[in-house]
Order: sequence, then C-alpha cells, then structure tokens
Amino acid sequence: EVTWDAAAAEKGGYDTFMEKEISEQPHAVADTLLGRTNDAGELVLDELRIDEDELKSIDRITIVACGTAAYAGMVAKYAIEHWTRIPVEVALAHEFRYCDPIVDAKTLVVSISQSGETMDTLMAVKHARELGARTISICNTHGSTIPRESDAVLYTHAGPEIAVASTKAFLAQITACYVLGLYLAQLRGGTYAQDAKAVLSELHGVPAKIEALLGSMDRVREIARFMADTRSVLFLGRQVGFPIAMEGALKLKELAYIHAEGFAAGELKHGPIALIDAGQPVFIVVPGPDTPHGLHGKVVSNIQEIRARGARTLVIAQEGDEAVVPFADEVIRVPHTSPLLQPLLTVVPLQVFALELSTAKGLDVDQPRNLAKSVTVE
Amino acid sequence: EVTWDAAAAEKGGYDTFMEKEISEQPHAVADTLLGRTNDAGELVLDELRIDEDELKSIDRITIVACGTAAYAGMVAKYAIEHWTRIPVEVALAHEFRYCDPIVDAKTLVVSISQSGETMDTLMAVKHARELGARTISICNTHGSTIPRESDAVLYTHAGPEIAVASTKAFLAQITACYVLGLYLAQLRGGTYAQDAKAVLSELHGVPAKIEALLGSMDRVREIARFMADTRSVLFLGRQVGFPIAMEGALKLKELAYIHAEGFAAGELKHGPIALIDAGQPVFIVVPGPDTPHGLHGKVVSNIQEIRARGARTLVIAQEGDEAVVPFADEVIRVPHTSPLLQPLLTVVPLQVFALELSTAKGLDVDQPRNLAKSVTVE
Repeated sequence: EVTWDAAAAEKGGYDTFMEKEISEQPHAVADTLLGRTNDAGELVLDELRIDEDELKSIDRITIVACGTAAYAGMVAKYAIEHWTRIPVEVALAHEFRYCDPIVDAKTLVVSISQSGETMDTLMAVKHARELGARTISICNTHGSTIPRESDAVLYTHAGPEIAVASTKAFLAQITACYVLGLYLAQLRGGTYAQDAKAVLSELHGVPAKIEALLGSMDRVREIARFMADTRSVLFLGRQVGFPIAMEGALKLKELAYIHAEGFAAGELKHGPIALIDAGQPVFIVVPGPDTPHGLHGKVVSNIQEIRARGARTLVIAQEGDEAVVPFADEVIRVPHTSPLLQPLLTVVPLQVFALELSTAKGLDVDQPRNLAKSVTVE
Repeated sequence: EVTWDAAAAEKGGYDTFMEKEISEQPHAVADTLLGRTNDAGELVLDELRIDEDELKSIDRITIVACGTAAYAGMVAKYAIEHWTRIPVEVALAHEFRYCDPIVDAKTLVVSISQSGETMDTLMAVKHARELGARTISICNTHGSTIPRESDAVLYTHAGPEIAVASTKAFLAQITACYVLGLYLAQLRGGTYAQDAKAVLSELHGVPAKIEALLGSMDRVREIARFMADTRSVLFLGRQVGFPIAMEGALKLKELAYIHAEGFAAGELKHGPIALIDAGQPVFIVVPGPDTPHGLHGKVVSNIQEIRARGARTLVIAQEGDEAVVPFADEVIRVPHTSPLLQPLLTVVPLQVFALELSTAKGLDVDQPRNLAKSVTVE
C-alpha cells in the first residue's frame, strides 16, 4: 500500500478531494509534459530504457487497462494510429488475460494504471511478458508494482489522487499516451516526425485552455443541480469523443448511481435510439468543425435525429461552432484545439457535471459506495 | 429495397414475427452450415472467390458491423483469433470510416449485415477496398448491395427476418463467422486444421441443442412477466459471454425501452458496481466449468460480489454447473458445448426474456419505436 504525505493530501480549501483534483488538471497535464523535450522541441524519453531499434521494430501495440484508464487507452488508440500508422488494440486487462491474446516480441504492450497496483492490469502485464512482449507502464505512483514488473515506465505527474473517481489522473494518462505516440512518430522519422513536433507544441498550450474552461463551469453546475433527480442520462460521441462519452457516463454511474450509458453516436440508429423518449437528457460531445472527413456534420445530424424524438440535448461544442445551436437545449463551450487533443477539454464539463449532481443528491463524492480507489484483487 | 415473398413472411401460427424467428434459430444455424463441407468433413467454400494463397497471406482481420451484427463480430474475434492466431479487430462501421483505419492488401475486412444494405457498413466496405483490402461480406440477403461491393460473400441462410430486432440472423452470423474462422484455420494447416475439424463436427450438433433449449423457456417467460415494470437490468459476461451480455442488453433497450447495459464482468469493480443496489436485477452469462484459465471460477466470484451488495442474480449456466447455485436467485440452464460455441445457446434465453417482457408491457415487439429494420442512411 502506498501512503501519501498527509499535507499533500489536504483538500486545500475545496469541499472535496474530487473538486480539488479537477482544479489541478492544468498542472497534471503540464507536469506530465515537463522535462520531456529538448531545446530543439523533440521528445527525449531516456527514462524508457527500451532500445530505440527495438521500439522502431514493433508492429502492433496493445493497451491494457480497466475502467477510466481504458478510456484513456481508447483515446490513445486514435491518436497513436494516426501519428504512427502502427495498429493499436485496446484490451480490458481482465479480458486480455483470459483470451489467448496474440502477442509476440514485436508487440508493445502499454499498461495504464493510476495506482500501479491494479491487479487485473498487473496480471495482464505479467502474461504479456511471458509471451515475449515489450511492456511499458503508464503510471502515477512511483515505486508501485506494475512499473517494477514492466520493461519501462512513463510516469504521469498528476500528484496524489485521493478521490475514488479518477479525474486529473485521467488527463495525465491521456497526455502520457500522446507523449508516447508522438515519441514513436519521432523515432519513425519523415513526415511522422514533423507532425509530432507541431502537435507537441500545441499540447504545451492545452493547460491554459483547461484553466480557462474550468473558469466557465457555472452553467454546468447549475444544470447539474436542476437535474438532481434525473434517472438516466445518455452520452454520445464519435472518434475521440466516443471514449469521452463513455467516461462521462462512468463518472455519473460511479458518483450519482444513475443509469448512464455512453455510445458511439453512429450506433444510435442501430438500436439504442429506441430508448429516446420525450425529455431524455443526452450529452453530445461534438468534434470541432475542422475534424477531417466531415465528422462534425455527421454529429450535428445525430443531434438533430434525437432532438426530433424529444431528447433534451446538452451539447459540448467548440467556441465558435454555431452549427449546433439550432438543435441544442444547452451548449457548453470548450476552447479550440486540433481534433485529437479535444478529449483533454471535452471531458472536463462531464466531470464537473457528475461532481455537482452527486453533491446535489447529498452523496459522498470522494468515496462512492461499493468502490475502492485501487482495485488490488482480481 | 428488398421485398420478401408474402407467404414466407407469414407468422406461421406465432403471435409475432420475432417469436417465429426465435423458433427458427435451429434451422438458421443448420442451414448456414449446409453444403459447406465435403465427405471428408472439410470446409469447402468455393463461393468465396478469393484466391487461397491470398487468404493464406493475410496478416490482420478487421470486422466492420453495427449494432447486433457487431456483437456477432465480437464473438468471431475470440473464435477466429483462437483458431488461426491472426489478430482480429472489431470496428463499428461508422467509426471505421472516420478514423484513418490501418488497412492494406494483407488485411481481410469482413463485413456483417443482415440486409446487405446497412449504409454505414457499405461505406466502410467501400473505404476498405479503396485502401486495398480484401473484403468478404457476411450477409443474409441475396442480391443486396454490400455483397455486390465486396470481393466475396458468405451468405447466412436464416431466411427472411421481418422483426426489427434481430434474432435468427444473429445466430446465423455467428455461425458464418465460425465457418470463416475454421476455413482459415484449415487453410493454414497443421494443428489448426485438426482443431477445425473437431469444432466443425461439434457445430453440426448445435441446432438440436438450440431446439432443446427453446423447449425449456417457460420459467424465463415467467420471470420476464414478473419483471414487466423493471426500470433497469444489467448484463454481465466474460470472453465470448461479454458480447452476449451486450446483445442481451441491446434487445431489452430495443424492445422494452428499458435502461439495460452489458459489461465485461471484470469491469464491474472498476466503476459500474456503484450502480448495484438492493434488488437490482443482473443477468450473468457464465462460461462452462471447462473453459480454460479458470474463467468459470472468476465469473462465480463476480456473481458472489454483486449478490453480497443486494443484486438479484439471474444466472445463465451450463447443465450440471452446480457451483453457481448458492449465489443465484434464478438459474437458467443451457446445454453443454465447448466454450467458444456457447454464444449460440446463451443468447437464446436473453432473446426470449426481452420478447416476453416487451409483450407484457403491451409494446409492439416486431416494430419498436424509432427503429428501422435496415438502416439505409448514414
């Protein structure tokens, strides 16, 4: 068991640890980027201790994780595949171990665990090593077990996370996944490396945007309080917005014990749209209008479809995106970023919503029922 | 639009098409196997029209589908990876198209669509072909668009499916995926081919088991009627039981407009267990006691955990599995099969449950609100 310095664990003026940790997210992202670039703006990950040639030779990546960390992994899949063209699979750690996974010496297995003690994830990493894979741990806790059992570790620097429901560790995990993906792109050279440099530079500007976003959450809190007796909430997203929809739903399940479910928005008309009835609240995570392949327009039609069936639409959209306005009961604005970096912003209002709704219901935000901070049994 | 012969589309003595189609499942599986083996018990798929050497050379498989067909794809992933050691990815068709998928001439893209007209799936297939992939369509409708746009087709022989919520087409899709996986295993030769022969022979015995199972559904119907006013139901499974849990939940969403969600059972304690309150009904799809890696025992502990928190446990378990009895409020028995073939049986009680609960609520089983049988728009 890892114990934290009592001083560091204080609530620092906030009512709950979760509130404090949400407010620390700009630092979690900035600190996870800190000291990982050289003067030329290139990533330097000496800490990885995996031979560069070995890393260049990998032909598949499998990310193993559970719960919120697995959603960070889903975001990572889109980004790493886009930047490196290496196929990435995200496996729930407890499924991976029992499914004869296809893993060999050219597979990089990336585990994600805040505590570094998640038993399911640890067992998956051990199994991957037995099968000959290279293993990298993305972890927030120095001296924990999973990094020790891995070939290499990329620490997130979110600081101690006390609230059971993960917030700042999630943002730090996504950031670390970006760093890993960009590093692999840099190693592979050519156009990949050029892209990596541009993305990295943009990434350094994201903490200030999270800070600005956190300053504009009053309306989200108000909506959450109005909805304190809501029985179910749906969450929709596409591409990197899909795992964010899943995470928004999970936060609400964990904190407010509400039946909340996240979907890939395109999946709606293949079944779940039957659930949409008059007044059903639905959050929609909208990609920026500059997302490739006209994805923005597709999501706007998804909003239109559910609204026509009576849904109450709570739309998370970029500043300046006016196309969503006619179909939105509420628009929650997030600052502009390039499409793959949006999860670092779009998840924030969903965290604040779950926190405030749980509080309005009089529940214990930091310690939800039935849950442990770190799941150290299989 | 494909039109069916009116005679074939009659309800044949059943109250609803869905009831009729559930009853036709033994035939759907048997007919999909029919004529695809030679006297030596080997698969012969001349219809595939893809060169055998080309099929031998593929190094990745991507399955594209939506809704229920995507759950058939998830079952296929476990089976095909196990039998062939070729990595399989399941992509929601509407996500695939917009995510810069990694696909090349050595990728086999398998699409699954009952109607062959699912627009999202069609667009995914076209995109895969542009990227140079070999494409196989698994489809129930002769002369439809997706088979025409694919290199090859493996028809399911479920007969016309009229009810919007898919049942017999799902079983036929799973069967066709098994056939494809076993055929690839046979092509690759060696121990793979031996395994394939044994599984195929077992598969031929499954229709009779489905028939027997359909004859023992009275208690499931009774439970469904008791639960007509239930507000939410959870579904848990692991390995091939995971997509079946998802499918059980989707059927209930589609037909009864109930908040139903399926989970990988191992995911519970990483968040969703917070939802479990006294009286919460939870279906658990239990793998057979002979499933490798002690998976049966893991699922039995999952049942124990949620029951300790007050859940009402509805357990789908193999005949003779006594270990589940102490923790089950209800045990629903299915006949024995080897682990990877279990989905053809375990999904049946979940279909019957959704049908009966929807009927008890007085809803239109064959034509649920907001849904179309075949989604021909993106």
